[in-house]
Amino acid sequence: MNTVTAPWKQLLLNALHSNSHLRHSSYFQLATIGSNGRPANRTVVYRGFQDTSNKIQMNTDCRSHKIEDLKQCPFAEICWYFTDSWEQFRINGTVDVIDESNPDPLKLQQREKAWFASSPKSRLQYLGPNPGLPSLGDQPTEVPSSLDPSAGPVAAYCLLVLDPDQVDYLNLKSNERITFSRKNANEDNSWTSDRVNP
Amino acid sequence: MNTVTAPWKQLLLNALHSNSHLRHSSYFQLATIGSNGRPANRTVVYRGFQDTSNKIQMNTDCRSHKIEDLKQCPFAEICWYFTDSWEQFRINGTVDVIDESNPDPLKLQQREKAWFASSPKSRLQYLGPNPGLPSLGDQPTEVPSSLDPSAGPVAAYCLLVLDPDQVDYLNLKSNERITFSRKNANEDNSWTSDRVNP
Repeated sequence: MNTVTAPWKQLLLNALHSNSHLRHSSYFQLATIGSNGRPANRTVVYRGFQDTSNKIQMNTDCRSHKIEDLKQCPFAEICWYFTDSWEQFRINGTVDVIDESNPDPLKLQQREKAWFASSPKSRLQYLGPNPGLPSLGDQPTEVPSSLDPSAGPVAAYCLLVLDPDQVDYLNLKSNERITFSRKNANEDNSWTSDRVNP
Repeated sequence: MNTVTAPWKQLLLNALHSNSHLRHSSYFQLATIGSNGRPANRTVVYRGFQDTSNKIQMNTDCRSHKIEDLKQCPFAEICWYFTDSWEQFRINGTVDVIDESNPDPLKLQQREKAWFASSPKSRLQYLGPNPGLPSLGDQPTEVPSSLDPSAGPVAAYCLLVLDPDQVDYLNLKSNERITFSRKNANEDNSWTSDRVNP
């Protein structure tokens, strides 16, 4: 367990707090490498840090392209720009893809916990048709209107956990930039920091 | 010259218009592949379409990492989320890096045009110290306070031009998603579009 907070994590928690009046402050862009070798980039919702660690959680659909991307190349970079405080966090790390076939019981527990932490409404989207496939019919796609709130994660639900090892922080109000690097892959809270030119 | 607007371009121009009261509506995230083979992702400012084409212009510093990234791998994906209209554009394409050493006189002209189109204040940043290098001194980095407004582009100024060949449009209000693909690399305005599940 961590007793000390990573230095960039405190900056990020402060930014989340000072921008919390904006719904989109919990949205960031996740870049991966697509199976065609080209960069891929999409908006994803922040689902909190995992317990007391520095790991960032996201929910996704097992049928989305980013799952294939991450299975081929587990590296990703989050770009998170806070529109009110003018702060940017670029968070580079490795993503763990936790679907229902995961062999680790602890990870399956984390997946279940994250499922119940998301709203019943957001759980419903995993019952919709296969994302990215041609839409049948002329109407906007429909999803079922209800789901038993006590039911566990459905097959299409996947938890993504990004373990950061490099963070680039930029503050456009103070014109300051700091890069943080993890010293040791086995230690969560051993980081170097360097002030660099913006 | 184009006489017809690409179908996704009209959607993008509409989104820019309906979100224009927000300063950050002209910011998007540009993903590239870093020289270490990992994804890289950062916020960039939209600098307009090039003339009447579908090509998207950005300004950057020649000394920034994304130049190295793009010289090794010219592919990039823009993720552009409009926070008021809840629309996302994922724009995948090839980026042309136009610095002062470019052998094409037409491209050098475009670089000069884009330089003068940017504000004198934003031109000043290219006179600052090397971005990403350790900052000397304890004070926030200083840049010169003025620049002759009639002076042409400085050496550090670089124009990036993304030529899209795939666009994924998502509207979170109507729950609609459309993918657009360019039929022919030599034709700007020949696109297929498919309605897909969000």
